[in-house]
Amino acid sequence: LSKGKVYIAGAGPGDPSLLTVKTAELLRVADVVIYDRLVDPEVLKIARDGARKIYAGKRAGEQWIQEEINALMLAEAKKGRVVLRLKGGDPMIFGRGGEEAEFLRLHGVDFEIVPGVTSALAAPAMAGIPLTHRLLSSSLLIVTGQEAPSKGKRSVDWRLAAGAADTLVILMGAGNFPEVAAELISGGLSSKTPVAVVEWAATPRQRTRLFTLGALGMGGADDEIAPPSVIVVGRVASLAKKLDWFRVDGKTTLKKNKTRPRRARADRSS
Amino acid sequence: LSKGKVYIAGAGPGDPSLLTVKTAELLRVADVVIYDRLVDPEVLKIARDGARKIYAGKRAGEQWIQEEINALMLAEAKKGRVVLRLKGGDPMIFGRGGEEAEFLRLHGVDFEIVPGVTSALAAPAMAGIPLTHRLLSSSLLIVTGQEAPSKGKRSVDWRLAAGAADTLVILMGAGNFPEVAAELISGGLSSKTPVAVVEWAATPRQRTRLFTLGALGMGGADDEIAPPSVIVVGRVASLAKKLDWFRVDGKTTLKKNKTRPRRARADRSS
Repeated sequence: LSKGKVYIAGAGPGDPSLLTVKTAELLRVADVVIYDRLVDPEVLKIARDGARKIYAGKRAGEQWIQEEINALMLAEAKKGRVVLRLKGGDPMIFGRGGEEAEFLRLHGVDFEIVPGVTSALAAPAMAGIPLTHRLLSSSLLIVTGQEAPSKGKRSVDWRLAAGAADTLVILMGAGNFPEVAAELISGGLSSKTPVAVVEWAATPRQRTRLFTLGALGMGGADDEIAPPSVIVVGRVASLAKKLDWFRVDGKTTLKKNKTRPRRARADRSS
Repeated sequence: LSKGKVYIAGAGPGDPSLLTVKTAELLRVADVVIYDRLVDPEVLKIARDGARKIYAGKRAGEQWIQEEINALMLAEAKKGRVVLRLKGGDPMIFGRGGEEAEFLRLHGVDFEIVPGVTSALAAPAMAGIPLTHRLLSSSLLIVTGQEAPSKGKRSVDWRLAAGAADTLVILMGAGNFPEVAAELISGGLSSKTPVAVVEWAATPRQRTRLFTLGALGMGGADDEIAPPSVIVVGRVASLAKKLDWFRVDGKTTLKKNKTRPRRARADRSS
């Protein structure tokens, strides 16, 4: 582990035991830990006494902007510190790890990328959903429901997506799911396609709910889909009923949906 | 950690430091480790003295079949052993983890799924390729070039795939890449689309090569694409030139292609 180097690392889905050995080791030695909003507090407890832990979460209305994070990494590295840039999940999947690496390279700062277990894959696994399955799925599409405003318009073509992969994994897509569901159905997916919503995966707050695409698209969730959530669309999603295995205080995390009276028929099929 | 339980766990891409903390711990305590071909020998060294290490790799012509692996897991669990079923990468991505979990559930054997860092994401990260990028990619499609024979025909529609995601990650697809490339181009991808081939990621044998889709599709690789390899198709692939960071004995793993004389023009653009 080198002084003056920035380690751009993934913190996994939540549970500290799902950190990589390397990231856990980095936490124990880093001088500075610059962490994002999705990094679990339990993970940060591993950091050594005396390490500076700096929150660089970006939420609507907060002041942290990418340029400030970049400047902070640069300043700490130039001081010869071991800098751990810690992101939820994997740093190269919707984590801007690549852009931060570009900045560091441009400024002559040494860096390493330390892959992590992305929530896109861990959340389904914790819910008992295999994203590929010899009989049900041989491809998966990972997309985000949120797009960079600077991109102007969405680049995800949901109608094409509907036919291109057996399984869709949608991150940060809770807010606009009804719209997405309508486009997926237009793209050819059956309204009966199983959908699993996994919230707070690999934490004591984990919750899995099963729907059909049609029912969830029409607002069939009994309450809000809370971030952080991962949405799985495809036949494999229904395997959660059979393979649900994660327990919190001995209890299943697979919840029965309380159906709204007016949605009863649509929900019954889920 | 429970006796009589099967832990279906991912061993990550190769480097033992990219194991999860939980899988490393399981290796240190398991009575029986049933491991696949893609599990790195360095990883197996962590297993405790006295643990039975059973190779269950499946290669053409070898005798191990899924039913035997299932029977072995069941027998060891029924004897009250701590059984670690260890797979390369992540157990639920092209690893048949789901099917093995189904078998165990059917036979009343307790199991846990332990996510791992899949090579599909780690190999690009080790090569300096961010799979998503605010300006270049907001979706990724993970597919395998190999299909279960029992499926009859391929379920991956490469032409649709070409338009559905900004970045494609192809696992185990080395053999038939020329055919895949032709279909991707038919599907609308430019023949100049950057392609990165990352072999033996996160091991001392790592090698990254960059091509264009057209050149690689026409056989532009100077030598065979060796498994285990991960192929990245999309604009982000070219970032390896800028963000290449992993060193083996102090040397870059990004190799210049020796262009074949007749392919010189096509290869120059890569």
